[in-house]
Amino acid sequence: MGILAKDGDFYSLHGIWGAYASIVLGRLGRGAGVVVGDVQPPKRALFAGYRRGTEKPVLLPFAPDVKVGRGVEAYTGEQAHPDAAAHPEVLPGRVPFEFFGEEDIERTLSLSGETWAAGRMKMNVVSFFGEVPDPASSSKAVLRDRMCPAIYVRLSFDNSGSDSPMVGVFGMQGIRRPLSDANPGRLLGFAHVGEWGFATAPAPGVSEVMDWMAIAAAFSDKPHVMRHLASDGCLRFEVAPGERKEYVVAVGAYRDGVVTAGMRMRSYQATLFRDLDDVLVQAVSRARAALGLADGLDRLLDAAPISGERKFLAAHAVHSYLASTELLADEAGKPVFIVNEGEYQMMNTLDLTVDQAFHELAYSPWTVKNELDFLMARSSYRDAFGIAVTHDQGVADCFSPRGTSSYELPGLTGCFSFMSYEETLNWILIACLYSHNADDGSWLRKNRKTLSGAVESILNRDENGDGIMDRDSDRCAGGAEITTYDSLDVSLGQARNNLYIATKAWAGLVCAASTLDAVGGRDLAARARASAARIAETVLARVVEPEGFIPAVFEGGNQSRIIPAVEGLVYPALCGVAEAVRPDGEYGPFVRALKRHLEAVLVPGVCLDPVSGGWKLSSTSRNTWPSKVFISQYVAENLLGIRDERTARDAAHVRWQCVGCADFAATDQLDSSTGADMGSRLYPRLVSSVLWYKTPTKRGKR
Amino acid sequence: MGILAKDGDFYSLHGIWGAYASIVLGRLGRGAGVVVGDVQPPKRALFAGYRRGTEKPVLLPFAPDVKVGRGVEAYTGEQAHPDAAAHPEVLPGRVPFEFFGEEDIERTLSLSGETWAAGRMKMNVVSFFGEVPDPASSSKAVLRDRMCPAIYVRLSFDNSGSDSPMVGVFGMQGIRRPLSDANPGRLLGFAHVGEWGFATAPAPGVSEVMDWMAIAAAFSDKPHVMRHLASDGCLRFEVAPGERKEYVVAVGAYRDGVVTAGMRMRSYQATLFRDLDDVLVQAVSRARAALGLADGLDRLLDAAPISGERKFLAAHAVHSYLASTELLADEAGKPVFIVNEGEYQMMNTLDLTVDQAFHELAYSPWTVKNELDFLMARSSYRDAFGIAVTHDQGVADCFSPRGTSSYELPGLTGCFSFMSYEETLNWILIACLYSHNADDGSWLRKNRKTLSGAVESILNRDENGDGIMDRDSDRCAGGAEITTYDSLDVSLGQARNNLYIATKAWAGLVCAASTLDAVGGRDLAARARASAARIAETVLARVVEPEGFIPAVFEGGNQSRIIPAVEGLVYPALCGVAEAVRPDGEYGPFVRALKRHLEAVLVPGVCLDPVSGGWKLSSTSRNTWPSKVFISQYVAENLLGIRDERTARDAAHVRWQCVGCADFAATDQLDSSTGADMGSRLYPRLVSSVLWYKTPTKRGKR
Repeated sequence: MGILAKDGDFYSLHGIWGAYASIVLGRLGRGAGVVVGDVQPPKRALFAGYRRGTEKPVLLPFAPDVKVGRGVEAYTGEQAHPDAAAHPEVLPGRVPFEFFGEEDIERTLSLSGETWAAGRMKMNVVSFFGEVPDPASSSKAVLRDRMCPAIYVRLSFDNSGSDSPMVGVFGMQGIRRPLSDANPGRLLGFAHVGEWGFATAPAPGVSEVMDWMAIAAAFSDKPHVMRHLASDGCLRFEVAPGERKEYVVAVGAYRDGVVTAGMRMRSYQATLFRDLDDVLVQAVSRARAALGLADGLDRLLDAAPISGERKFLAAHAVHSYLASTELLADEAGKPVFIVNEGEYQMMNTLDLTVDQAFHELAYSPWTVKNELDFLMARSSYRDAFGIAVTHDQGVADCFSPRGTSSYELPGLTGCFSFMSYEETLNWILIACLYSHNADDGSWLRKNRKTLSGAVESILNRDENGDGIMDRDSDRCAGGAEITTYDSLDVSLGQARNNLYIATKAWAGLVCAASTLDAVGGRDLAARARASAARIAETVLARVVEPEGFIPAVFEGGNQSRIIPAVEGLVYPALCGVAEAVRPDGEYGPFVRALKRHLEAVLVPGVCLDPVSGGWKLSSTSRNTWPSKVFISQYVAENLLGIRDERTARDAAHVRWQCVGCADFAATDQLDSSTGADMGSRLYPRLVSSVLWYKTPTKRGKR
Repeated sequence: MGILAKDGDFYSLHGIWGAYASIVLGRLGRGAGVVVGDVQPPKRALFAGYRRGTEKPVLLPFAPDVKVGRGVEAYTGEQAHPDAAAHPEVLPGRVPFEFFGEEDIERTLSLSGETWAAGRMKMNVVSFFGEVPDPASSSKAVLRDRMCPAIYVRLSFDNSGSDSPMVGVFGMQGIRRPLSDANPGRLLGFAHVGEWGFATAPAPGVSEVMDWMAIAAAFSDKPHVMRHLASDGCLRFEVAPGERKEYVVAVGAYRDGVVTAGMRMRSYQATLFRDLDDVLVQAVSRARAALGLADGLDRLLDAAPISGERKFLAAHAVHSYLASTELLADEAGKPVFIVNEGEYQMMNTLDLTVDQAFHELAYSPWTVKNELDFLMARSSYRDAFGIAVTHDQGVADCFSPRGTSSYELPGLTGCFSFMSYEETLNWILIACLYSHNADDGSWLRKNRKTLSGAVESILNRDENGDGIMDRDSDRCAGGAEITTYDSLDVSLGQARNNLYIATKAWAGLVCAASTLDAVGGRDLAARARASAARIAETVLARVVEPEGFIPAVFEGGNQSRIIPAVEGLVYPALCGVAEAVRPDGEYGPFVRALKRHLEAVLVPGVCLDPVSGGWKLSSTSRNTWPSKVFISQYVAENLLGIRDERTARDAAHVRWQCVGCADFAATDQLDSSTGADMGSRLYPRLVSSVLWYKTPTKRGKR
């Protein structure tokens, strides 16, 4: 079970759903551990290893030579090292353990987590448990169970065939208290005050070790005295000769009080749990059930008819997405769901939300509704053309003022300009995805006017009647709107007269028309359809013969070739308008032209990178975005019928993550030749890969 | 006003009373800024400087080459640097400003803060406001005023004699939001989410600058567009030609929710203020009154009849003490006062509390009562000899379990062993200091039994009837008790048969007897006096002739000479038993012997360091402790009448702090020859220096 990582030296984020917290680990010899309120790898050691008999202890290589907190030498002045007598092995120059090398380790990913197997141990980190219940329709007991802000580390120690006892260890740096202090007989483990901690149930042969160098003390057989001033804590597991043992450690996070500014919000999970210790007690007690859910998810992905590389990418993406999720409670106690934007920490960046909606519709459709409502209520504005939605809702737990984002600035034509058109379109697309796949009609009926207003606003930005955006928002104040591809060149960066935006607008209008039909908005639906038809005509008129490609931008003599020309086709297929993307359907010529375009650009040196072989979004840029590649791969194979060696470039895409972007978990902007990260590090958006194995709920039914 | 720092390149902590937060600054070219929940200098830049006309801007040297948060290059991928057009000066290789050198700067300390004067600017940090009202007898309005968790930075810019405009700037790295977002028209400034921030009142010519390199943007005259994604924020002040301007910036901190573990406590100030913005609004509005209080304190110290060096040490000590203070609220909302132990972060370390009580009795006597009560209620225990009090109450906001400390461990004879005897004595001494100087009798009547129990417990530890401790607590489990001088050699480190402890025990018994007399405890008082008399006899019998010194430890042939032999004499003098320390009083021979001892050891090469000339607590150790030196200096000069060049070693003591310990603000363990820090960095205890200028309240009345 799971997919072997060929290049196993890369960081993973293992997020705790809704807690804006995660375990970060994976680069050999580099820091690992829990982070809260951010996604950057910590500069601390994580300990996992064992000692058999009198052999030298051996550890997974997550214990860099990093000190946290005060060491004993800060206290002892001119006195002798107080550990010298008890643990001579910790004196300078002595190394009391060895590390497994890369060649000793088998690292495998699965949808629910990942496993490190080395020597006689396995460490399985389990962070994804699938569906998250809707607080609006769930009891507190259910939410305490299924929204418990904790993940698990399952440790196996194999002492079979041995006649000596084995000692297994799991621990972290940065802790400040043993859990047994406040929870005698209930928990063993350690915590960083009330913020994060790891715990297991008391059992024979399991003990806590807190010491200046806890890992050395843990492997000692001498009686242990807890040193409460130390910042290293380990759980110690005794495994008798001949035994195999498995232990489950819960890793939880908790943030008390108001955690935001701009709008006052608490962590929603703080409304369900009294404190971290309450979380850990609950997490320990529900471990078996949670791990059962995880096993089910792993079976789902294992059984999916896709390549191992895609399974790997999908699993890696989910773990990283979870690390950016944050469920807040407003002052009335109502849930507000935020996905933070990886390293950038922007909140509910709407051009990510639309791509993450594929995942959320499969696992937490209510968060999609929550995002739609909160974005419209807090972060919409009116410009000269009508309603528009902002790029994001703030940054780093600081909400930006009503109707503004933390990102958009006037007077620019590149990065940091406004995305009024695309974000409004994104809101429409998410509304259609949600309505079709998760709504019983009530949300749609309630939001019909808002949806209509957004569609009118989109139509108003087409000045010359060709269906395509040609007016920049007046918010730009002389600048020009950009797209989500803000750091790419003009081929994908400029919104006006852009092919990528044209197809996406076509999709938005087609889906909105169908959605509005269902609630009696036939007039506007008809106008939307007419505009969609004009977009199709406009695009068709731009085909360059004899090559058959469509230029990325319909002005300035642009000749760039772009893959995301086809991206928009994904929406009608998932919003109940599959007919619209059939080559022989109403928009057949348009769809066929896009297929021809894609075939024209999926050529080495154009949109297949000549060095790596991976998908390159634009012929004129080496900056490529995996989350978007995944959507276009889905469109190519499932909607356009292109499924061959041109689409099976997944090995290159895995190498990008595991080698080029090894320092940054799931990365969404990288150099298509070298794979080196260029931005969007530690990112949630790559869950668009869910399309490969679990498309939104209703699709299965059709 | 204020005392010039001759060696001006050292860190200061400027604590916010009760908030466990401070501004740290002072090492040239090193990080500076706000820290919350610890005392370590941050690796961030603090900006303070100006530009006159078209001259190159010049800054105080608190802007190290350190990046915080994402830089713009994380966003822009292959696009051009978006600031290149607006601010070409920020491009790599261009340095848009200069720093003042050490020779350009005049740094002066005062009791309320410190001032940096350079060129045409002054920056005055004001962190001490004197008395803190008792929550038990103060209205919420008074507490919001006098317990507002904020300090001030007063900036002066002198553009006189110029016909060009001047731009002054103050800012910090690490902020995430402009205050005007949530407080339009009320505040200008920046905050790190809801945790800390700096603010000023809106006024003409004052504006916010938030940018990737805010300091460059702040000095530009181009219109500024706030970049909410940046982590640098500056306040920009325009000063017209010929003008002199002063601006006051409030710097506040706030911690919401439960901030502790082990016992659930909130920040007390969070019960008075809604959030950080509420703190900053209040701080800005009370600035004038607060600065008036600060001026009064400065006048007090300026007028004190002590050397400039002592004024310097006293001021430095107060600022550092404030950084470790933390006022919590328990679950019933009652205040719990904690002083954290500098770099070690132990909570209410009782052997510090006793020395800090001199300061607290002068400025917040209710905190002394609060400490006495909470230490006895939470952190006392019974060993084989009776009641005893623990070394501390926990570490880093994690309360240790009832009746235990985070420090003490069994089975040891050195650092980390138990301090049962000395800590119990400390509690008695604080109870006596509080009763005599701040109590109307009610606390004493309520706690008479507890005080009696503690005295009985001390008496029980003298097995052979010589008055001196000779039984180690059974908690030591075979080890031996130590003293507060845990990292010193045996001369001060061992509790049993120790001269320092003997004098302190004598003082505790003398003071307790007087205190018990007042509440009808005459039997025990008589026994305490008898034991005190036996201590005096025992010590007298140990005088070594003809030198006249008394060895530090009355066993093992020890011949160390120690200054703290006299330390205990301070207590009777401050507890209404001044008669006991008169050379012609009841204990005259003992007092005269101690004076003779001190004269015998205050000799170069014995307890005057042969290299630095500073006071060396033990002849056999170079590890000396300024907080304790200060007390013994007070005893020598004010009680024993030794006031000459042997006691006037303050210049060396200043050099220890400003040169040897430059990295660690007030440091309390250092090498007496080199001044290099050996431990107890960033420490609160040096406020024992308050004895030089403001002894406890009742003393003035006698």
